[in-house]
Amino acid sequence: MLSPLILVNLKTYREGMGNRAHMIAQAAELVASESGVTIGIAPSYIDLHPLSHHFSIPVYAQHVDGCEPGANTGHITVDAIKSAGAAGSLVNHSERRLSLADIESSIRGLAVHNLISVVCTNNELAGAGAAAMGPDFVAIEPPELIGSGVSVSKANPDIIRRSVAAVHAVNPRVKVLTGAGIQSGECVKIAVDLGTDGVLLASSVVKAKDPGAVLRDLVSKL
Amino acid sequence: MLSPLILVNLKTYREGMGNRAHMIAQAAELVASESGVTIGIAPSYIDLHPLSHHFSIPVYAQHVDGCEPGANTGHITVDAIKSAGAAGSLVNHSERRLSLADIESSIRGLAVHNLISVVCTNNELAGAGAAAMGPDFVAIEPPELIGSGVSVSKANPDIIRRSVAAVHAVNPRVKVLTGAGIQSGECVKIAVDLGTDGVLLASSVVKAKDPGAVLRDLVSKL
Amino acid sequence: MLSPLILVNLKTYREGMGNRAHMIAQAAELVASESGVTIGIAPSYIDLHPLSHHFSIPVYAQHVDGCEPGANTGHITVDAIKSAGAAGSLVNHSERRLSLADIESSIRGLAVHNLISVVCTNNELAGAGAAAMGPDFVAIEPPELIGSGVSVSKANPDIIRRSVAAVHAVNPRVKVLTGAGIQSGECVKIAVDLGTDGVLLASSVVKAKDPGAVLRDLVSKL
Amino acid sequence: MLSPLILVNLKTYREGMGNRAHMIAQAAELVASESGVTIGIAPSYIDLHPLSHHFSIPVYAQHVDGCEPGANTGHITVDAIKSAGAAGSLVNHSERRLSLADIESSIRGLAVHNLISVVCTNNELAGAGAAAMGPDFVAIEPPELIGSGVSVSKANPDIIRRSVAAVHAVNPRVKVLTGAGIQSGECVKIAVDLGTDGVLLASSVVKAKDPGAVLRDLVSKL
Repeated sequence: MLSPLILVNLKTYREGMGNRAHMIAQAAELVASESGVTIGIAPSYIDLHPLSHHFSIPVYAQHVDGCEPGANTGHITVDAIKSAGAAGSLVNHSERRLSLADIESSIRGLAVHNLISVVCTNNELAGAGAAAMGPDFVAIEPPELIGSGVSVSKANPDIIRRSVAAVHAVNPRVKVLTGAGIQSGECVKIAVDLGTDGVLLASSVVKAKDPGAVLRDLVSKL
Repeated sequence: MLSPLILVNLKTYREGMGNRAHMIAQAAELVASESGVTIGIAPSYIDLHPLSHHFSIPVYAQHVDGCEPGANTGHITVDAIKSAGAAGSLVNHSERRLSLADIESSIRGLAVHNLISVVCTNNELAGAGAAAMGPDFVAIEPPELIGSGVSVSKANPDIIRRSVAAVHAVNPRVKVLTGAGIQSGECVKIAVDLGTDGVLLASSVVKAKDPGAVLRDLVSKL
Repeated sequence: MLSPLILVNLKTYREGMGNRAHMIAQAAELVASESGVTIGIAPSYIDLHPLSHHFSIPVYAQHVDGCEPGANTGHITVDAIKSAGAAGSLVNHSERRLSLADIESSIRGLAVHNLISVVCTNNELAGAGAAAMGPDFVAIEPPELIGSGVSVSKANPDIIRRSVAAVHAVNPRVKVLTGAGIQSGECVKIAVDLGTDGVLLASSVVKAKDPGAVLRDLVSKL
Repeated sequence: MLSPLILVNLKTYREGMGNRAHMIAQAAELVASESGVTIGIAPSYIDLHPLSHHFSIPVYAQHVDGCEPGANTGHITVDAIKSAGAAGSLVNHSERRLSLADIESSIRGLAVHNLISVVCTNNELAGAGAAAMGPDFVAIEPPELIGSGVSVSKANPDIIRRSVAAVHAVNPRVKVLTGAGIQSGECVKIAVDLGTDGVLLASSVVKAKDPGAVLRDLVSKL
């Protein structure tokens, strides 16, 4: 992957379901194609298959259970998201924390099925812990900045530098995403200049009146 | 609802995904139409929309989060399953246990959206606890019989009687399902004769070579 | 129990550990003896045995696991708190939520050992659910008022009335405690007048400069 | 630490509470003193303070919450176990799994208070993940061997070799314990020869008629 990844988490926002999910995916596809930047989208389980079917951008699950197919009522297996066309999955998002054993089995299950794993963590030490298990990406989101409207890249560039260093000290092949408060092309530019491979963001795109305009701004300085 | 409910939980069995899910749903639709018995199916989140779109039988989610739309990455809201065409949802299955507060919010959220709640519990006291929160159904599955191949209706009819009594003492409008080891029309007949409103079952249908034949047997004594 | 119960949860407050825990217990013992009101205290597991050994007031665990003795590393069994001299335990506190099955097994385990169960819940429906499982007390703490400094008995007396009604409709022998924001004798008086059997409170006593003075005020209108 | 660590987890076994806990601690103290091998014991929270007060061997908590003192009802803080005289704590035991963030905060909290962290994991990748967060020890217990009566050191010495390599590749200062099925001095000897720094074990000591004899055998080949 040469270009950074802009990964948009639709969460369960009302503004990120059904028709709105399609509209955001369409905007993402257009901006990705214009800019050459990779833009991914992580919708509800329900929208995984329709979005991956209708659009060329990579579609991610918001969570996956590392368990094998079997007696696991209410779980979502790697098989299931693969059959829905997912390119990968978030793992251990701050709103869906997992045990260490479950993170490890999710990373492994995704790798076995050639899907991309993006493990979310809250600080550089936990990021190093995640990196040691060999995911494709570690996304570091300082909890104090999540949903704060304050961009980590402006508020605390040092935490980004330290995170990249901590992750790469353990495993230099693991890519790093920056999360928490990313809102503009300038935030993305700072994050990438500090050594990360992209950003993970949510409300600033999903809740925007014009998600396409926000996406266009996000890639504008790359 | 005059007829009993036969509710088939596909879990995450390999034999209950994708094409197999469609095949089981088709068989269920046919047997339901022949017999007049209500047969529901609870597939993976991924199969919720296609199955409810293609078949006339009620389709249930295996789990739902009672939270409102919002910042709940990796969760599945009542809104989301409703938009996928679900008739209702299992809640608190033994393989996906929830806190009391989350069970209550799931029951309430389902009711607000006119969806059916089926709360699973492990014994009559927990069943009474669930019933007091006003769900449509309480399903009681003694953990020692789950997946045992031993039918609760034969092994321990008394637990069914006590469960029905415990649930109805708290709230006589709550219907009771029997789970754990149900395999034949005779099991279903006993369960219904003991005062329950149907059965919740999984592997005996899902893993069968011919799910239609098993379903036909299950409704044969009603 | 003729008198109301004032139950003081020490949480893991720095001001409620070690020497401070002893000081608060001593004040509670004194005020209880002066007033004839029952005052209980729920300290850290570490302080359970010393406090129940040194003081005559009832000492509660803040949480108990309903599991039997066995391979349950890091759990706290009913046996363990009984051997430490506990009179009972909080169950399902909002800061330590449990599954329905675990609440049921905790209530049952406490009853088997003649210990008092105080099940915490967040609203009247969940309170009714808890009551149906037959605990000694249900404590209802509206989450929006916890730690708010706003007393439920002043802000929302109706929720207390409805809670008492909901609990007693299911099981009239279950006593009701009021929680969230209780700070003064007036709050306690209102709560008791509305039909509850006492209050569950924490910071207003634990973090007070003079916990004895606060306790004396709490019982002053009874 | 020059000698290996034999760490005995009393779990919540009936045979590891109260008087039995004292008896096992006494035996451990005697065998440790005779042999020069470090023998630690991880009792119930209730027995932490009495055991660390009465015996010279290191006493560990079975679990600790990484949260700060505060509104954390039912949790056990590092402060609390430190005040009880603990030398350290197990973290993330297979019977008490934690999220990655909670493991990280527990390790950090223990380090801040100069207590020893022993993070349990289920395989070498999860072990590497734990090691990257800088605990004192990582204990690797293959789940298929826990409580099996089959010793990992005999059944699968390769997993021990790979675990040591995986942990040390990430952080060579982290020591490795072997768990699961350890029963004899020969098992301990193999484990140490394969590069680990000791063993974590439970039932073979706790449920023994004569725990002292078992302990004496365990250290006999060192």
